[in-house]
Amino acid sequence: MTARPASAHQARLLKLLRDGGPNSRAQLGDQVDLSRSKLAVELHRLLDTGLVVADGLAASRGGRRSHNVRLNPRLRFLGVDIGATSVDVAVTNAELEVLGHLNQPMDVREGPVAVFEQVLDMAGKLKAAGLVEGFDGAGIGVPGPVRFPEGVPVAPPIMPGWDGFPVREALSQELGCPIMVDNDVNLMAMGEQHAGVARNVADFLCVKIGTGIGCGIVVGGQVYRGTTGSAGDIGHIQAVPGGRPCACGNRGCLEAHFSGAALARDAVQVAQQGLSTDLAARLATNGTLTAADVAAAATAGDTTALELIREGGTRVGEVIAGLVSFFNPGLLVIGGGVTGLGHTLLAAIRTQVYRQSLPLATGNLPIVLGELGSTAGVTGAARLISDHLFSPA
Amino acid sequence: MTARPASAHQARLLKLLRDGGPNSRAQLGDQVDLSRSKLAVELHRLLDTGLVVADGLAASRGGRRSHNVRLNPRLRFLGVDIGATSVDVAVTNAELEVLGHLNQPMDVREGPVAVFEQVLDMAGKLKAAGLVEGFDGAGIGVPGPVRFPEGVPVAPPIMPGWDGFPVREALSQELGCPIMVDNDVNLMAMGEQHAGVARNVADFLCVKIGTGIGCGIVVGGQVYRGTTGSAGDIGHIQAVPGGRPCACGNRGCLEAHFSGAALARDAVQVAQQGLSTDLAARLATNGTLTAADVAAAATAGDTTALELIREGGTRVGEVIAGLVSFFNPGLLVIGGGVTGLGHTLLAAIRTQVYRQSLPLATGNLPIVLGELGSTAGVTGAARLISDHLFSPA
Repeated sequence: MTARPASAHQARLLKLLRDGGPNSRAQLGDQVDLSRSKLAVELHRLLDTGLVVADGLAASRGGRRSHNVRLNPRLRFLGVDIGATSVDVAVTNAELEVLGHLNQPMDVREGPVAVFEQVLDMAGKLKAAGLVEGFDGAGIGVPGPVRFPEGVPVAPPIMPGWDGFPVREALSQELGCPIMVDNDVNLMAMGEQHAGVARNVADFLCVKIGTGIGCGIVVGGQVYRGTTGSAGDIGHIQAVPGGRPCACGNRGCLEAHFSGAALARDAVQVAQQGLSTDLAARLATNGTLTAADVAAAATAGDTTALELIREGGTRVGEVIAGLVSFFNPGLLVIGGGVTGLGHTLLAAIRTQVYRQSLPLATGNLPIVLGELGSTAGVTGAARLISDHLFSPA
Repeated sequence: MTARPASAHQARLLKLLRDGGPNSRAQLGDQVDLSRSKLAVELHRLLDTGLVVADGLAASRGGRRSHNVRLNPRLRFLGVDIGATSVDVAVTNAELEVLGHLNQPMDVREGPVAVFEQVLDMAGKLKAAGLVEGFDGAGIGVPGPVRFPEGVPVAPPIMPGWDGFPVREALSQELGCPIMVDNDVNLMAMGEQHAGVARNVADFLCVKIGTGIGCGIVVGGQVYRGTTGSAGDIGHIQAVPGGRPCACGNRGCLEAHFSGAALARDAVQVAQQGLSTDLAARLATNGTLTAADVAAAATAGDTTALELIREGGTRVGEVIAGLVSFFNPGLLVIGGGVTGLGHTLLAAIRTQVYRQSLPLATGNLPIVLGELGSTAGVTGAARLISDHLFSPA
């Protein structure tokens, strides 16, 4: 089912049905501002493509009852969200509802061949579960910058072996369907926009704090990717002048001071220094510590763990405060694995942003946690490919 | 002449004639991708409005010679660029060529009534010079954030008395023509985009360093103003943690460490401390110092003045480096009164941005001075009102 809409009107109708679900011809006509006859022509063509199907009669609005239409209920999209240490694979219907979702640990440093073998294996499990026969399209998120038109990762700092790998080309052969590739943070922003906390917000920022740290930028409802696809790459903004050395060669980068990886290192250090009995016990048991351990220790009331989270939130907040002054967003979403740190982190970020940015920019600025958790990325991935397929060829 | 185009096609034709000058019907038809008959209808309607006039026969492309059209050569726009300490007033034709331009010292703190009296007086001088009989529209720039839809300044930090003043309403009555109001930095960006160094660049930043400091943001060829109109307000981004106290109540804001005003204060201090004989002599002569004095001293080889400029450039560069990582622009333009400091300032900014931002964002990033100087703002102001008048009503 690789038909594409033939006109901008058809594309708009497809997106309305995706975002609003099944609808009557009459109401769709109101929304796209098309005459009855023109609408009939466009819908007829969409029904011919098989992307849209008839769906019975609508409730009466007075007069003749209008016919309902909906996106083909057999359409299936694959959403793949590759992180640094785990991968999410999900299947959605055409309205981007997640029908099945798998998460597995994975190491992105093993390179694209090994990772995509695992992804295909997970997609196979979703097929075996009877959720899907074949995919009509797939969206793929990777944890680094992407040359968007070609679907190729570029110089990804935490992804040795991925630079220039033709993800789009390779996977579309394996899966037999169209593919779009984007940065994982952009997909999280699109997911929260489609089904989460950013619905109906035109201009917002979505900061993802995971192993690394990045920011999705949405302008006028569209993801802004920048001139070379690296927009939102905020992990290497200077947070502490002359601060910690960073893998990029500079000092004081945000990511060196706060991220999942930095937090884990800090946790090991305070455990070894005897500053936290809770973290020391976890280190002794597991041999290593992660951001999740810090979250657990904080929840258990460990003051050193709480302090690590607060300090980190303050660092992130300092950088975000500058971005808020610059971008004047309508909403700021905090998401990613480290949001297990929850409201302690959020409070520290809020305090810093509200203190440091001008009131005109923050007066009406909600700063909130993402709503979708690990579903945000795969939903955004499905939206990415649907945006592509529901646009004129 | 307040007719507006009736369709998106007409609006597009008007903007093509504005940006490209007089053209043949045949070539316009190619550019807008309209059939010969449809183009004839749209142009006929535009000729009826008086916005467009016939302009003789085009050179032959083989076959029948096409008729030329152009924007009405009698159309006149007023461009007003209000700074903190001076005001520029210019008259342009419909292609936004500056036909006459006046600059006068002015103190924005005298409030809107006094300032607009001066602006109207200057506009009267342009009329008296025979350059214009009446204005078809006016664009006004003010040195602070603007609630764009209403054309009203909001809580402008350096503009006491301007908060909420209905600039658009008041001036459109006085001038008898439509008015649009925007932040001065956005107008500089639009000016450089129309006729300067940013022609044909889709995504760029334009940093204006004057009495204060601000940044124009252009996304996909359009100025991005943010949710409440304060986007680009970078003067209060923290440049130096725990640094100098700022008028906004925080410490270490960029503007407190580098701007025209900060540079003047620093110059007085080094002069009084005997660190610069050149600046001390200028202070003794004039009783005060400005950024222009620092520029002159640096040009004369004064090492302390040079050092002030370099330090300032480094501070600005540190903040811009973060914005470059975040926004990944295709071009960075430096403009404003303080660019009299020229290449010393530019070199310091470049050094810092190229050092601190990731290569993916800076690999192909030109950092250049604006081309238009004081013409940028008034050209941008004329473009602002023409964008409005050349859009469907």
